[in-house]
Amino acid sequence: MHAELSLTELERVRTQIAPWIVETPSRRWEDSSLAARLGAGTVVDVKLELFQRTGTFKARGAINTLLNLDSAQRARGITAVSAGNHAVATAWAAQQLGIHAKILMPQSANPYRLALARSFGAEIVIAPSHHAMFEMVKVLQEQEGRYFVHPFEGPLPVQGSASAGLEFTEQTEPVDVMILPVGGGGLCAGFAAAIRQHWPDVTVYGVEPEGANAMYRSFRSGKAEVLESMNSIADSLSPPRAEPWTFAACRELVEDIVLVDDTMLRDAMLEIFYGLKLAVEPAGAATTAALLGPLRERCAGKRVGLIVCGANMDAEGYCRHITQALADRVAGG
Amino acid sequence: MHAELSLTELERVRTQIAPWIVETPSRRWEDSSLAARLGAGTVVDVKLELFQRTGTFKARGAINTLLNLDSAQRARGITAVSAGNHAVATAWAAQQLGIHAKILMPQSANPYRLALARSFGAEIVIAPSHHAMFEMVKVLQEQEGRYFVHPFEGPLPVQGSASAGLEFTEQTEPVDVMILPVGGGGLCAGFAAAIRQHWPDVTVYGVEPEGANAMYRSFRSGKAEVLESMNSIADSLSPPRAEPWTFAACRELVEDIVLVDDTMLRDAMLEIFYGLKLAVEPAGAATTAALLGPLRERCAGKRVGLIVCGANMDAEGYCRHITQALADRVAGG
Repeated sequence: MHAELSLTELERVRTQIAPWIVETPSRRWEDSSLAARLGAGTVVDVKLELFQRTGTFKARGAINTLLNLDSAQRARGITAVSAGNHAVATAWAAQQLGIHAKILMPQSANPYRLALARSFGAEIVIAPSHHAMFEMVKVLQEQEGRYFVHPFEGPLPVQGSASAGLEFTEQTEPVDVMILPVGGGGLCAGFAAAIRQHWPDVTVYGVEPEGANAMYRSFRSGKAEVLESMNSIADSLSPPRAEPWTFAACRELVEDIVLVDDTMLRDAMLEIFYGLKLAVEPAGAATTAALLGPLRERCAGKRVGLIVCGANMDAEGYCRHITQALADRVAGG
Repeated sequence: MHAELSLTELERVRTQIAPWIVETPSRRWEDSSLAARLGAGTVVDVKLELFQRTGTFKARGAINTLLNLDSAQRARGITAVSAGNHAVATAWAAQQLGIHAKILMPQSANPYRLALARSFGAEIVIAPSHHAMFEMVKVLQEQEGRYFVHPFEGPLPVQGSASAGLEFTEQTEPVDVMILPVGGGGLCAGFAAAIRQHWPDVTVYGVEPEGANAMYRSFRSGKAEVLESMNSIADSLSPPRAEPWTFAACRELVEDIVLVDDTMLRDAMLEIFYGLKLAVEPAGAATTAALLGPLRERCAGKRVGLIVCGANMDAEGYCRHITQALADRVAGG
């Protein structure tokens, strides 16, 4: 275990970020539809992290990162690159601490998340291409002295995410299996580090979109892999690459990475609509999709924990996915 | 105050039903869209009662009513009349206690709620008309000796609902204004009785659909009024009449009843989608619609409590309402 992920360190970070963070509730998922799909005896506890400030777990890592900047760096400001929730969380954290944020977003960014990032007072720059975006952020670091807030790499975002795991250990009995979503792996590594130190017998699985499987490939090759392209409705779980520090932490803490496709994600969004009464974006349904799909047998009869990690999405897009899921269920019988 | 609604009585009932009931969480509603509509300084705490067993607060009253039946009555079974959530809650409560339930539902009942009631093992009888439904339920009482579980009239459902209010007083600081939905008034009377005994300075408002305003009319006439027809998308708040016991309790405890129309309900569903990440049925959005509409000025700068009372609805219908709300916002500028 990295020293930065010891329980002492994680508790220190949790206390440090506490004034800014919501302790999100957990809930037992009790519903006849879920029981019919999983079989009786499987018990599911859900961490409702979509109720976090900014709508996703990203707030935890962003505020932790910014609290670690010295006053000279805070005065020079920060920058970030994100298609969505990391932009929102970084804008929010910067506003909380009175730091100027200039954030690069791609033209393809979800308009709702773009407007939300702007609502927190950040200066948003739309980049003409992904390549240009990463060139531009380098310029902002070099010419304006801005600190680059990474969405998932290194101890700071991972320690921030771990606070959610510490909360979960206080909210439920120990689980046998914990299912965590993987984009860059920051939430997965941090949450896993926290719960494994409280619950040594827990098995942790990560879930990645089939169309953005950098961590899955990295687990198999043994090094942080780069993707040529990403293709998933779970855009919040679709970074272009894994990175070494967070990959190494995931590899140590996570039993395996499983994959879910868009149809499974949409179906899980619908199951969450009915069973949990929550309106989530595709990434927020990834753990449920894994529970109903690739991990179903491995979870049968067990105590299972999962996290609904976020829910920032426009209502039009949400209803398109739900309508498609309904059609898929009819077609599938 | 009715003796049945004393704090001692309400605490006794809360303890009695506790093994069956979820203590639902409350949550501060913090979101820039809401703040822009209400003005800064208005603080809103929300009771997430849609996370109750069966998806609505109705479980509280149903289990309390059934726990009060003696063993001979339990053996003879129960009956109920409902277009939706009361049927679901009664079916669930009967299953919990091993009581046979034969429940009458109209042909117009929401198919999702009908299937949900069946999933709890109740025998569902579809009545050819509203008139026939009430005739049939009389026959079930007389010929089969079944106990008629009323959806809102009298101490038993009201005391059950009060347990949600007791929880709320432990979950938040005292509020200045509490907004509660009104169908038959059972939740409103019970919740108000509980919080007013803890927070003597709170002002309670009830919200009714414009197209099903029995309580609003009853407040003005001074007696429990009967409606000729109901016309609201908030079908869960649309009983055909007020009843005397619960009306009298509401009249004593509630400052005023305000009305919301379908457009306001749909808009509130959309606000809840974005701001609370919840997928609610129209009735679950009634308190938010009142806060954003008729009660906005009376709530400005105050501490406000509201309850999201339920969320049982088919996904198709939900998306139709949300899509209409989006179109209405565009049309309204």
